[in-house]
Amino acid sequence: MGQNLTQKILAGHLVSGSLEPGTEIAVRVDQTLTQDATGTMAYLQFEAMHIPRVKTELSVSYIDHNTLQTGFENADDHRFLQTMAARYGIYYSRAGNGICHQVHLERFGVPGKTLLGSDSHTPTAGGLGMLAIGVGGLNVAVAMGGGPFYLIMPKVVHIRLHGRPAPWTTAKDIILEVLRRLSVKGGVGKILEYGGEGIKYLTVPERATITNMGAETGATTSIFPSDEVTLAFLRAQGREDAWVELRPDPDAAYDETLDIDLGALEPLVACPHSPDNVKPVREVGPLAVDQVVIGSCTNSSYLDLMKVAAILKGKVVHPDVSLVIAPGSRQVLAMLAQNGALADLVAAGARILECACGPCIGMGQAPPSGGISVRTINRNFKGRSGTADGQVYLVSPETAAATALTGRLTDPRELGDPPVVALPEKFPVDDRMILPPAADPAAVEIRRGPNIKPLPVAEPVPENIRGRVLLRVGDNITTDHIMPAGAKVLPLRSNIPAMAEYAFAAVDPSFPARAREAGGGIIVGGENYGQGSSREHAALVPMYLGVKAVLAKSFARIHRDNLINFGILPLTFVDPADYDRVGQDDVLEMEHVPETLQRGAELVVKNVTRNATFKVRAQMTPRQVRIVLAGGLLNYTRGNN
Amino acid sequence: MGQNLTQKILAGHLVSGSLEPGTEIAVRVDQTLTQDATGTMAYLQFEAMHIPRVKTELSVSYIDHNTLQTGFENADDHRFLQTMAARYGIYYSRAGNGICHQVHLERFGVPGKTLLGSDSHTPTAGGLGMLAIGVGGLNVAVAMGGGPFYLIMPKVVHIRLHGRPAPWTTAKDIILEVLRRLSVKGGVGKILEYGGEGIKYLTVPERATITNMGAETGATTSIFPSDEVTLAFLRAQGREDAWVELRPDPDAAYDETLDIDLGALEPLVACPHSPDNVKPVREVGPLAVDQVVIGSCTNSSYLDLMKVAAILKGKVVHPDVSLVIAPGSRQVLAMLAQNGALADLVAAGARILECACGPCIGMGQAPPSGGISVRTINRNFKGRSGTADGQVYLVSPETAAATALTGRLTDPRELGDPPVVALPEKFPVDDRMILPPAADPAAVEIRRGPNIKPLPVAEPVPENIRGRVLLRVGDNITTDHIMPAGAKVLPLRSNIPAMAEYAFAAVDPSFPARAREAGGGIIVGGENYGQGSSREHAALVPMYLGVKAVLAKSFARIHRDNLINFGILPLTFVDPADYDRVGQDDVLEMEHVPETLQRGAELVVKNVTRNATFKVRAQMTPRQVRIVLAGGLLNYTRGNN
Repeated sequence: MGQNLTQKILAGHLVSGSLEPGTEIAVRVDQTLTQDATGTMAYLQFEAMHIPRVKTELSVSYIDHNTLQTGFENADDHRFLQTMAARYGIYYSRAGNGICHQVHLERFGVPGKTLLGSDSHTPTAGGLGMLAIGVGGLNVAVAMGGGPFYLIMPKVVHIRLHGRPAPWTTAKDIILEVLRRLSVKGGVGKILEYGGEGIKYLTVPERATITNMGAETGATTSIFPSDEVTLAFLRAQGREDAWVELRPDPDAAYDETLDIDLGALEPLVACPHSPDNVKPVREVGPLAVDQVVIGSCTNSSYLDLMKVAAILKGKVVHPDVSLVIAPGSRQVLAMLAQNGALADLVAAGARILECACGPCIGMGQAPPSGGISVRTINRNFKGRSGTADGQVYLVSPETAAATALTGRLTDPRELGDPPVVALPEKFPVDDRMILPPAADPAAVEIRRGPNIKPLPVAEPVPENIRGRVLLRVGDNITTDHIMPAGAKVLPLRSNIPAMAEYAFAAVDPSFPARAREAGGGIIVGGENYGQGSSREHAALVPMYLGVKAVLAKSFARIHRDNLINFGILPLTFVDPADYDRVGQDDVLEMEHVPETLQRGAELVVKNVTRNATFKVRAQMTPRQVRIVLAGGLLNYTRGNN
Repeated sequence: MGQNLTQKILAGHLVSGSLEPGTEIAVRVDQTLTQDATGTMAYLQFEAMHIPRVKTELSVSYIDHNTLQTGFENADDHRFLQTMAARYGIYYSRAGNGICHQVHLERFGVPGKTLLGSDSHTPTAGGLGMLAIGVGGLNVAVAMGGGPFYLIMPKVVHIRLHGRPAPWTTAKDIILEVLRRLSVKGGVGKILEYGGEGIKYLTVPERATITNMGAETGATTSIFPSDEVTLAFLRAQGREDAWVELRPDPDAAYDETLDIDLGALEPLVACPHSPDNVKPVREVGPLAVDQVVIGSCTNSSYLDLMKVAAILKGKVVHPDVSLVIAPGSRQVLAMLAQNGALADLVAAGARILECACGPCIGMGQAPPSGGISVRTINRNFKGRSGTADGQVYLVSPETAAATALTGRLTDPRELGDPPVVALPEKFPVDDRMILPPAADPAAVEIRRGPNIKPLPVAEPVPENIRGRVLLRVGDNITTDHIMPAGAKVLPLRSNIPAMAEYAFAAVDPSFPARAREAGGGIIVGGENYGQGSSREHAALVPMYLGVKAVLAKSFARIHRDNLINFGILPLTFVDPADYDRVGQDDVLEMEHVPETLQRGAELVVKNVTRNATFKVRAQMTPRQVRIVLAGGLLNYTRGNN
């Protein structure tokens, strides 16, 4: 029987294991990327491994998150990252050059290669036919050091796109439809592989919108074949040499299949506060809108912004709407500045922001109190916009542009015929804002600002764990709940003691003080605990505050790996009903933990407060057990060297 | 004897008094402007006067300060300002439309008219021949209500520009030369009136750079004649109807004269941490630079940025420099986007920021720790950049561009011939981002967010004042010392209790707690106390914290007025040596304060701690005495209605 696309790439990179869903495999990593918010920690960890130069084919360090620079911290971190890159053989994409995923797609992505990135939207490169996975920074550090990436072989879901998209139906609407069907946890343990004759209508940037936001389903990654469309994009970027054809075998098998009729889709919107709360735009309105944000790694390509410019040209933003636009890359911005489209956007009243993540990560442009913000971004978690009671709706750039003009959530079909925009034959290529590694690495002095604090490292897991339930939370707790992003907290990413003050800020601001007072303890969660970002700080900070274990109904993939990497036990209730039998402040006890985990047996938890017991399981591979028992991956890696 | 320009405009607007330097006059106010950081308070104060519609010829509310929006506060304030403007007859310039002074110059300024603005750089409009004065928001509120503006008639200084500027010598270098000669307090109590045959070589935007930064000398304002150059600018803006010719009489007299030979000037730089610490660029370097910032109300016009674009075209920013550019207005940005200059800037690696004040007020782009930042802005006070140990150098756009390319502070004469850029015959005029007042004001609902707190109002001055010296500071304390700007504090401008926590943050962070604990007290300062911004919060917050009096060697004009406006006594030492005989924490006593001030007599201060006495004087007009005794201008105005 033939192989699907995922199996082909994994087989070509397999270091250990076999492609049996549910079993652990290790794969060779060709490329890595980091951004500045996760990067400082990743490179501190890489540095702690004492390896003189990265062993990947290509590693790139991007600056795109901490670009507001409201204090010295960001510029210090950028200087640190620039010198680390020069020293250790890493390309450095300077502030202003654009969002990591957009730039990687344009300048570095290669079909058929593997990419590990310390950002949850790394699957964007799947639009080019790369197998691109978002992970914690420590995993990237290990990969830069030449170590393989371990994962549980996911199931492969074939998403077949049929027919041709209806007018005004965009890539964003396709991925919103996928989210509507799969939910924010429907992709956990799966890779979403796109196929069907409908894919030929989607350019690479449009495919990248889909693979990008596939992250919101919890999927390990998403991927498209590499075909003539891919070749055309790479040729336009002057990179046709990077192209290889890559398709599933005609008789390839899949674990699951999902069929989508593109002609039957219509403009969709994800309503507050979850990306899977998806409805047709026409069913939601009329909704008076305060702000429209166009940008983010999901929707800020040349194609996206040219369509927006065409819609806005000669018109003006509604008086009650603040329209902000952040182009995805310097290439995109330069093109819009050259061809007059930027002038059209400015004339229409758009506020043009720097090429960076910006409002998507709460880095500025917070909406007013209780404000309605319609955005082309990928996540609308409560509070992520920077305004606790802000209401964020996720839409296509076309819907966003139409909404900016009318001042109410607007189905773009009201505008008549959609604009026709094509990819250029040639993109203007200018890589001068990407600095290659130093010719003489030994001469590079690493520059460290006072915001860069030493890395906290966990202790090995003790024989018995006894601790208070410091916090009990419900389903779908995101990494934004655990460790907020935004303009106040992101600059502290390399300063764990300072960052710890914000842990669970939106859920219970007393958490850090209580955790410190109790000398650590245990967290109890519901389904899909830790969905969202790849930020390892959502594990690192709880570890720093003494959290020993998280008991949940289920975990999101990246966060579960991060917990293991930082020596916190991720445990699931054998009987999910036991979740209701644990209260906040209950004292729990687990005995003989290392030995039980090594046997792969269930752990008995004694609820001392309620004088009851229940069982949890770890579901870790033997390798993961060794890592967590050692107190995390850094301890483990050092111990093995 | 003939009149000078200043006398002509003042005479035409005189409500009371005579044009005798040192005596109090009152003048009619034709126009007002506010920005969003000072505007919320100004409009709250206007609202408290219960006047249905502004009585000025024109009032404009600009959004340019709080544009990062890292929390709900800014967008809430913008919504409040938009609805207030619609309701009370004020034009509203939306976020993204540009910096107040640049836009006012382009679209609203009228030669010969008076303008009062709640921003210290309001004198920018002096470049057009307006008499434009920066004041606290409360003064603007009173002017909007139809009240005259009271000031002590300043001396008029004739600054005669001789000859023609040498190549690469710019308007910025002229005003830096003025600062070098006058110092940051040399303009106090004076108006700087420019003349001489050299002015014909300066376009209106260049004249505006000079009048703008004249604020740094402490001058009441600066002004140029309205001549053919002024007409050409207004005609290019489609506003030739606004032009009137305005020149001093040939036999006009001046109180002082300053002569500058333009041909003898060279590129200058103001070194840290004062705008008057001026040296030739060639004498300072070589200095490795981390950041270059081009923008602010001083240097972000079309002319400025076209020159920068010409210098950067085809080259790329030095790898160690972060270059950020914030165009001054949407008109400027649109022109650069249309003519390809913006594409040149982007290609050179510039990070393009929104059209707003941005880094000049510490609103983002803080340099790294100890970083060297070369900027085209107007102030380099310690810490104002957002980085406590940042080193800010003030230069022309040409010097900044040259520096961005080489990575070290660079005299632009090294580049060879300067670029030749002319003003356009016609600017593209598009006022769609300026909203006129509502046609039906009664229908406008004022929208108030939770950040807008009620206005604190002072008590009348008591019979006797007894208090501890809460803080004793040295010379040239700026309003940035008293009440910092920047991304953390500016959003709190309409929330005095929250803002009070940051009073004197850079000088002594324990000040707010100590002031609260002591139930208020007294501040002791040196020369030129309160230089810098017009922010009335530097008086309002100390008043809120219980400060009853400031004893100093001398005061900056706007701040002294603000102290009076908020019921704090501004007192100067009769013998400056007594400054050295008062220590922090000393307890001081003054008896029979109201009666003594009404008599215009000196106050005897008893230093209870040291068992000594000394004298201070108030130097207030009878009107100012009535205001301060009433507990400030709002109490006074209400009492008179």
